Amino acid sequence: MTEFKYELIAQDGNARRGRIHTAHGVINTPVFMPVGTVGSVKALKPQDVRAMGADIILGNTYHLFLRPGPDLVEKMGGLHEFMNWEHPILTDSAGFQIYSLAHRNKVTEEGCTFHSHIDGSKQFISAEISTQTQHKLDATITMAFDECTKKEITYLNAKKSWELTERWAKRSRAAFVKRPGYGQFGIVQGANYNDLREESAKSLVDMDFEGYAIGGYLFEEQKCDGKMFDDVVSFTTELLPTNKPRYVMGAGYPSDIIRAVGMGVDMFDCVLPTRNARNGQMFTSEGTLNIRNARHKESDLPLDPKCSCDTCQNYSRAYLHHLFKTGEILGLILLSQHNIAFYLNMMKQLRTAIEQGNYASVAKEMLETYR
Amino acid sequence: MTEFKYELIAQDGNARRGRIHTAHGVINTPVFMPVGTVGSVKALKPQDVRAMGADIILGNTYHLFLRPGPDLVEKMGGLHEFMNWEHPILTDSAGFQIYSLAHRNKVTEEGCTFHSHIDGSKQFISAEISTQTQHKLDATITMAFDECTKKEITYLNAKKSWELTERWAKRSRAAFVKRPGYGQFGIVQGANYNDLREESAKSLVDMDFEGYAIGGYLFEEQKCDGKMFDDVVSFTTELLPTNKPRYVMGAGYPSDIIRAVGMGVDMFDCVLPTRNARNGQMFTSEGTLNIRNARHKESDLPLDPKCSCDTCQNYSRAYLHHLFKTGEILGLILLSQHNIAFYLNMMKQLRTAIEQGNYASVAKEMLETYR
Repeated sequence: MTEFKYELIAQDGNARRGRIHTAHGVINTPVFMPVGTVGSVKALKPQDVRAMGADIILGNTYHLFLRPGPDLVEKMGGLHEFMNWEHPILTDSAGFQIYSLAHRNKVTEEGCTFHSHIDGSKQFISAEISTQTQHKLDATITMAFDECTKKEITYLNAKKSWELTERWAKRSRAAFVKRPGYGQFGIVQGANYNDLREESAKSLVDMDFEGYAIGGYLFEEQKCDGKMFDDVVSFTTELLPTNKPRYVMGAGYPSDIIRAVGMGVDMFDCVLPTRNARNGQMFTSEGTLNIRNARHKESDLPLDPKCSCDTCQNYSRAYLHHLFKTGEILGLILLSQHNIAFYLNMMKQLRTAIEQGNYASVAKEMLETYR
Repeated sequence: MTEFKYELIAQDGNARRGRIHTAHGVINTPVFMPVGTVGSVKALKPQDVRAMGADIILGNTYHLFLRPGPDLVEKMGGLHEFMNWEHPILTDSAGFQIYSLAHRNKVTEEGCTFHSHIDGSKQFISAEISTQTQHKLDATITMAFDECTKKEITYLNAKKSWELTERWAKRSRAAFVKRPGYGQFGIVQGANYNDLREESAKSLVDMDFEGYAIGGYLFEEQKCDGKMFDDVVSFTTELLPTNKPRYVMGAGYPSDIIRAVGMGVDMFDCVLPTRNARNGQMFTSEGTLNIRNARHKESDLPLDPKCSCDTCQNYSRAYLHHLFKTGEILGLILLSQHNIAFYLNMMKQLRTAIEQGNYASVAKEMLETYR
């Protein structure tokens, strides 16, 4: 039986090259987790996601809780079996989506009452329900249930919110069914108040989670401010144990990830590569471009001359522009594929740089052009 | 240099097992050609279409004429290069789509004036323009330009229409640039009037095309009446040379194809597998089913227990139902993939049956359950 364990292989400055051993295989870190919201990484077959180098994907507990529901997924053998992805899966706690997607949500000591964004039905999720749902999904990594707060929040409200999240973290930890090779992460909150982040980190470390996330609305969904992000991430990372993985939730642009890796963060997820691809917004080693733009209409260049993905090896910008303009599904497939490949290849380059001890120069070069 | 040539390998009754040698590779017949309307087989990567066993795909001249235009495709190295499909491609003549899709079309001796279904712009296609467009697309098989008539048509109108199509066929043949391994097919018209079909076939055979199609609105787009289809196909096939491929355009349901193969037809195309998949309508060895149906919600069965495609090997009906209900693009991919695999596997089974001399019994068994 594989024990859930973080293994440090190399370090370069604060940047860490590691391996997380899990029941579903090894995760090479620093890692980017493509987001498979309702049990599919949008527009991509799981075997293609794997072939591009993904070690782990993320599933959204909020979405899967609503459709198709944890009981059905459990009956079908868990999310791995259901979606044909035998490798590690991390599920979030639903806290962020209840805040950002659901309607009329009400937070009490017990948990969150909200109305589904799909059909308006009244729903309730608590620390116990979130944790049990993730158990039924058979998540390799379960996240503790947290309250997500506004980006702009007063110290007093941030403190109250953290104290509630702390009680929920204890309840989440108690509800977690320990199994070999499975882990549960606590989520450090506290907005951009250092003393709250410190209190939060210490308290969670005492609960002895298998890993720690840095959460908060300021990080998720591309809402982040670069300076605040760097300040909070660098401050919080220093408070976390070195023998456990560290995860910044919902970040972000390639440049955010590169900087955070330099501060010692191991794990990332973001919807940007797939969501932006569906709008034609492409990440390349030369910066971003939008394939809808008329200047690509007759271009026989690949999206990114430095990329080895199927899209860049086999299709011109002119063809991708044509597919996008004609609304062909294949356009969404090929564009999503490139953006995911871009993120995964970037992580691979960062891992190699750490191993070779030249992280600073590789990161500096990337940051000159990457968005 | 490969010459364009039909090679008969085996015959079982009227059913023929053959090979068409072309500049872009061998086509094993009887063959089904997945439809790649605007330069993409909808929702599928070309390498996946190839891996499922497709020898040739079809491109729609009407759509490609409008977007992205033949000059751009030619500039990008032809349709093979543009869409990353190095194998044979057949392009239709645009005649059927001008009739079925375009607005306010006007037919004169010179050609068809019509308004684009996309932006209403006024367009003109003649026998020469259709043939030159297909040349620019670099079609392995070019179709002669034809007039498509209503399903219900008087003898007199069918006769006039055929006579126009005959003059267009001569002009198409004259405009065709002969190259080794490339071919041009004439299209037999004449509605369901045997003497017109006979006159049409004889005239086209005199023009010495590399192959012959049986066309007409009564065959295309699932509008066909089974008895009329069988009567016209069996009557017309008898009139065509045995040393050239025979193609029934736009047909059809699996059962139509099975019967037509039994009459000696070699080539088929139809949008049914991909279009129906996008509506959840699936073809299986047990008949059709709609994946949207609530009875599939908790089913751990594959779509088709006899199918070896990726979709049937790796995903349950419950998962496919979930993807369809949540509007995930992966649902369209996996469903399209199965329907195309179903058609291609059926053709493979028919080819094997002809080789083994048991076509009649294999066809009979399929016709008991296949729609």
